Amino acid sequence: MSNLFEHSTIEVLIAAKLDGTITLAELLKHGNYGLGTFTGLDGEVIILDNDVYQVDQTGTVNHITDMDTTLPFASVHKPSENEQPLSLAKADFTLLNQTFAADKNLKNVFATIKLHGHFNAVKVRVAPKQEKPYPSLLAVTKNQPIFDTENVSGTIIGYYAPELFGNITAAGWHLHFLSDDHQFGGHLLSFVGSQLDGTFEIFDGIEQHFPINDDEFRNHENDLETLKAAIEESEGFQD
Amino acid sequence: MSNLFEHSTIEVLIAAKLDGTITLAELLKHGNYGLGTFTGLDGEVIILDNDVYQVDQTGTVNHITDMDTTLPFASVHKPSENEQPLSLAKADFTLLNQTFAADKNLKNVFATIKLHGHFNAVKVRVAPKQEKPYPSLLAVTKNQPIFDTENVSGTIIGYYAPELFGNITAAGWHLHFLSDDHQFGGHLLSFVGSQLDGTFEIFDGIEQHFPINDDEFRNHENDLETLKAAIEESEGFQD
Repeated sequence: MSNLFEHSTIEVLIAAKLDGTITLAELLKHGNYGLGTFTGLDGEVIILDNDVYQVDQTGTVNHITDMDTTLPFASVHKPSENEQPLSLAKADFTLLNQTFAADKNLKNVFATIKLHGHFNAVKVRVAPKQEKPYPSLLAVTKNQPIFDTENVSGTIIGYYAPELFGNITAAGWHLHFLSDDHQFGGHLLSFVGSQLDGTFEIFDGIEQHFPINDDEFRNHENDLETLKAAIEESEGFQD
Repeated sequence: MSNLFEHSTIEVLIAAKLDGTITLAELLKHGNYGLGTFTGLDGEVIILDNDVYQVDQTGTVNHITDMDTTLPFASVHKPSENEQPLSLAKADFTLLNQTFAADKNLKNVFATIKLHGHFNAVKVRVAPKQEKPYPSLLAVTKNQPIFDTENVSGTIIGYYAPELFGNITAAGWHLHFLSDDHQFGGHLLSFVGSQLDGTFEIFDGIEQHFPINDDEFRNHENDLETLKAAIEESEGFQD
């Protein structure tokens, strides 16, 4: 049975609880590919075959080897026998959201995509590190550094979540990018890619893990009325 | 890591998709205690140490041994090292919802409770079996047989889910009841118990499983605006 493993929820970030609650060592037990962020929303994390990269708020890509580093939120998976090869001659968010999501009938399932190739244009955001008392993710993303580049080789990785789970995680696609030369990356806002090759997998389910021994997690409140819109605004793309 | 295992969602029942999508044989691999319903909402299922009981719409309790029987929805777990003993001198839904939920700080976690003892009064509902074209769970529960009894020994088992997951499963307590003499049971609407003993466990997370190879599941639509209220109305208690 293939699962997406998700540690904590984006709801917790919206509730301004930004301390790390899982170590990289523990997280990597549950998956060797994925994405996330570090304590204080310190950048955008991308995990490729157990190699952990952080894009920090200056746009610098750091290779993280300290397995005690903690994350307040992360999504990871281990590729399973459900994984299929995927080639896209041309791709952008419009294709992924419309033709691709319809062809693969994604609306009620969680899925992952990994694509490598040439990108004519890429635009990313990077969450800047926050100090206590922490603001909400929603406030942080209103003043986030945005970077763009052209003609770069790199990898997209991330997840598709059903609308039904839009209170818990980012509904639709949540993708991170890393260039092959490790000079550019972040949370993907828009892209135009060509001759992309990689893999695609629909999960049997999601293992949603909570930091149950963390008092801030256990005690936090949230506004269910505004939550889904806040997650969409924080984690959306721009196409 | 201890998880609640949930096959499909109550959202799917609200969407009137009532065909079974997991066999008992497969379900019991993921837990030996739990609850659920059979194809067509055929009664209330309670699983106690791998013994599967169905309360049907006549109020009869059947011991189910055909492991090919299928369920459209079920929640099961295996007790873990997180399990704690629990004794309650007196209990009802008011106690579980208020004092107990506050003392155990349940609002952001999934938990399970199992209580055995004397019940001064118990009221249950039993979903009546539906035929195709299936109606929504919401319509079914508007005309559901209700049974009550007094002074009976029995077992309560079920789960607590956070409000945040109220689009997917029953938020708050979702409990089933079975009498020791197997003459009475169902989905618990109200109860007054005394000298109840059992166990309580907070889960590290939830493994939410989907019937991804089922076309009806993959293609179904739902109304996210009305969903949480529909689940509350269908799966609520009466205290």
